[in-house]
Amino acid sequence: MTKKVAVILSGCGVYDGAEIHESVLTLLRLDQRGAAVKCFAPNISQHHVINHLTGEEMPESRNVLVESARIARGAIEDIREADVTEFDALIIPGGFGAAKNLSDFSTQGAGCKVQAEVLAMAEAFAAAGKPIGLICVSPALAAKIYGPGVTCTIGNDADTAAAITRMGGTHQECEVTEIVEDKDRKLVSTPAYMVATSIGEAASGINKLVDRVLELVQENEDRLPD
Amino acid sequence: MTKKVAVILSGCGVYDGAEIHESVLTLLRLDQRGAAVKCFAPNISQHHVINHLTGEEMPESRNVLVESARIARGAIEDIREADVTEFDALIIPGGFGAAKNLSDFSTQGAGCKVQAEVLAMAEAFAAAGKPIGLICVSPALAAKIYGPGVTCTIGNDADTAAAITRMGGTHQECEVTEIVEDKDRKLVSTPAYMVATSIGEAASGINKLVDRVLELVQENEDRLPD
Repeated sequence: MTKKVAVILSGCGVYDGAEIHESVLTLLRLDQRGAAVKCFAPNISQHHVINHLTGEEMPESRNVLVESARIARGAIEDIREADVTEFDALIIPGGFGAAKNLSDFSTQGAGCKVQAEVLAMAEAFAAAGKPIGLICVSPALAAKIYGPGVTCTIGNDADTAAAITRMGGTHQECEVTEIVEDKDRKLVSTPAYMVATSIGEAASGINKLVDRVLELVQENEDRLPD
Repeated sequence: MTKKVAVILSGCGVYDGAEIHESVLTLLRLDQRGAAVKCFAPNISQHHVINHLTGEEMPESRNVLVESARIARGAIEDIREADVTEFDALIIPGGFGAAKNLSDFSTQGAGCKVQAEVLAMAEAFAAAGKPIGLICVSPALAAKIYGPGVTCTIGNDADTAAAITRMGGTHQECEVTEIVEDKDRKLVSTPAYMVATSIGEAASGINKLVDRVLELVQENEDRLPD
């Protein structure tokens, strides 16, 4: 049976949206593993727009869904249209968009809120026992999705790890090539560009994450009655 | 010896810039093969900006170099800074940016002009006998770079192939998983999303193109005196 995976994007570009390499590597591995993918994004304004050449803020506004559509080649839907019952798993790539658009973690730290539609969608996957993969800085949302006690990784950044701990999560250090799994919650995380110094390094951990998420889907299927 | 490859990007998004998947797949394979990569883009305004969700033009302007920097995570330079003697090969991913920003092929067809700095850079690689890889619609520029007689592929699109023929090029049909090589000119091309129906298909041809370009670099090195 074809495994169906929802991917939430947060814009298009590491400094104000979804990290492009991580997003594309996720889509590539899912396709190579035979999964069917649908991309979603919230139909909201970006927190801001960053000139990726200079790092400076630009005096304009962009929409998260419209910019995410660049990565998805137009094949993307407003997250409000997402029907969680249609999917077996959820993956959220990183980039500052996860901390600026999908949540306000970049400014609020441990006091952050996850964007309402993103939170509702992720909570629905968690409640249904469907696996979730969080990449790069996205695991900063884990304690908000699963509540205290959840285990995840963002690699080895002390400040981000401390914020996760303050939210009630358990942070576990992790190499860029590896994943951390919370087996009870079926949550898989990998640091990717929180640690990676090259696209090949990012790919190594993301490939493992995608593979493990699809294995967890298979385990769910094996447990179901015919 | 580490092989050094220049990559020219044309924006960030299939409909008005560099095709994101093709660009990232190119960077991934080059990294996995141990090549050192530097990205370049012309510091010019985009032909236009397309809303990738609706396909409609947006009433704003964006800069090709600034938007390309999203794909390159900031590690990109103005093409005016490019020193061809520092590089062993050149690769240009596709997307409409190749036909709208790197040239005016999308509106002028066979009567197109290649952007002056892009043309000068590509001609310098060709004159030095250094291999060039052209992906997707970028081979539409081949006859302008190499002159009549050059052989390339854009897959099987009749109109684009006819335009290449009118420019003096020889178009060769090609499957998405394959490459076409002009051995005399050391030009390698592959159709990618001119034909691909999935990111995995695009990757299959792009991986072959990158591998062949790097083999051609090796052949150049083997020919040099110590």
